[in-house]
Amino acid sequence: MRYAIVIEYDGSAYNGFQRQKELPTVQQTLEEALSLKLQEDISVTASGRTDAGVHAAGQVAHFDSRKAIDTSDFGFRLNPLLPRDIAVKACYGVDESFHARFSARRKTYVYRVYLSAIHAPLKEKYNHVCFYDVDIDVMKEACKYLVGEHDFRAFMLSESKVRTTVRTLYEARIDVSEGGRQLEFVFTGNGFLHNMVRSMTGTLIDVGRGRFALSDLPEIIESKKRANAGKTLEGKGLTLISVDYGKPLCDGFVDEKREKVTEND
Amino acid sequence: MRYAIVIEYDGSAYNGFQRQKELPTVQQTLEEALSLKLQEDISVTASGRTDAGVHAAGQVAHFDSRKAIDTSDFGFRLNPLLPRDIAVKACYGVDESFHARFSARRKTYVYRVYLSAIHAPLKEKYNHVCFYDVDIDVMKEACKYLVGEHDFRAFMLSESKVRTTVRTLYEARIDVSEGGRQLEFVFTGNGFLHNMVRSMTGTLIDVGRGRFALSDLPEIIESKKRANAGKTLEGKGLTLISVDYGKPLCDGFVDEKREKVTEND
Repeated sequence: MRYAIVIEYDGSAYNGFQRQKELPTVQQTLEEALSLKLQEDISVTASGRTDAGVHAAGQVAHFDSRKAIDTSDFGFRLNPLLPRDIAVKACYGVDESFHARFSARRKTYVYRVYLSAIHAPLKEKYNHVCFYDVDIDVMKEACKYLVGEHDFRAFMLSESKVRTTVRTLYEARIDVSEGGRQLEFVFTGNGFLHNMVRSMTGTLIDVGRGRFALSDLPEIIESKKRANAGKTLEGKGLTLISVDYGKPLCDGFVDEKREKVTEND
Repeated sequence: MRYAIVIEYDGSAYNGFQRQKELPTVQQTLEEALSLKLQEDISVTASGRTDAGVHAAGQVAHFDSRKAIDTSDFGFRLNPLLPRDIAVKACYGVDESFHARFSARRKTYVYRVYLSAIHAPLKEKYNHVCFYDVDIDVMKEACKYLVGEHDFRAFMLSESKVRTTVRTLYEARIDVSEGGRQLEFVFTGNGFLHNMVRSMTGTLIDVGRGRFALSDLPEIIESKKRANAGKTLEGKGLTLISVDYGKPLCDGFVDEKREKVTEND
């Protein structure tokens, strides 16, 4: 039987989601807890990797088990076996057509930036602290250039191997609070390249502080050269907020598009 | 010469503000950095202690030095000598009538509570995570009973020794965000007893979950018995937001009320 789980984690202590030899990862920690709980070897497949230090409020993963799990309170029963920085928030028994990665339609990420001329201890953990003066209105304007279907190669970690670097960004906006000092860069898209959110945010900051002009943005995107865009900000400011599967996850969830898929996921 | 400094700190790693033997404290850490920077023995006096694990966005302290300090960028020059969880945000050369504790007129604290039926890793660090269903409107109503001049002995750590347990609370409100799950209990008063904010918030939560009725609050206050109020919540949810000296701190700040004070502060 296949199960989908929604996971929240503070990524500070982990070397990213994906299992690695001899480095602590979210995947390994989850699999160990699930295997212990269900008394069988469990492998989880997430909607996508998150990098070292990156957080998730609503990561989704699936796993297969021989057991019939009471999904209603599975998180409550599993979480005592997990460290305090990882929690399973929900569990659903889903159809085999559901695949955490291939069934995903949209993802939403938030990158948090705190504007402060001086070091800000209470903002360090979950923000990039930006010491520059930035023009928030210009950055909001710049967001519009990113929205739409583009080849986002200029915002991808250079050594990444992917079939296509074309992605669609449905929304890019900046939420402002705390008297204009707390910025949340919110991005929703059909998929994201490696480091894409972190380098888009770095580029928007560069626009905000005048290092790039608004009119440079189309050229930066067009050039498809990583070196032309802004820097990749730290992982700690980034949180995967949610994964959208076209309809709410629930027990019995079927992915109609993938119902006839025969390959072995 | 006397100097006032505004300090932000993440209290997680410290055993409170006040210096203690063999335990790391904010005071000791600050005094070591200041003494090293100014090459003389510096003692700091804060507006008040904060307990173990409690944070500050705007703690204020004063110290005396023989040096003429360029206050404009003192934080920038001092902060490299401080650990990342403590920062001096501003420094002012003040009149000797200024005393961080005795000149203070009002203080504002925020206690953060996150409502979640299940463990919330991303909220753990700066919130009390509350698993109960609470009625926010009832809690807001309950805040009104706390405002005003009262003997707050029922909200004081039992073994505290103070001249008087009467304090005036000017404001008690609850700011709600994130779809009703993030609560900020904001309290402004002329002074706070030991554990007062933490036990008032615990009591308000008890009202919100129906353990106390609204009408119990006057009796709880009246009783002056710690055992009658709600529990003291964890230090990690509490932040000292600001200390108000009746007018903005600045170079040359004079406390007119204390100008003729002769005792040795």
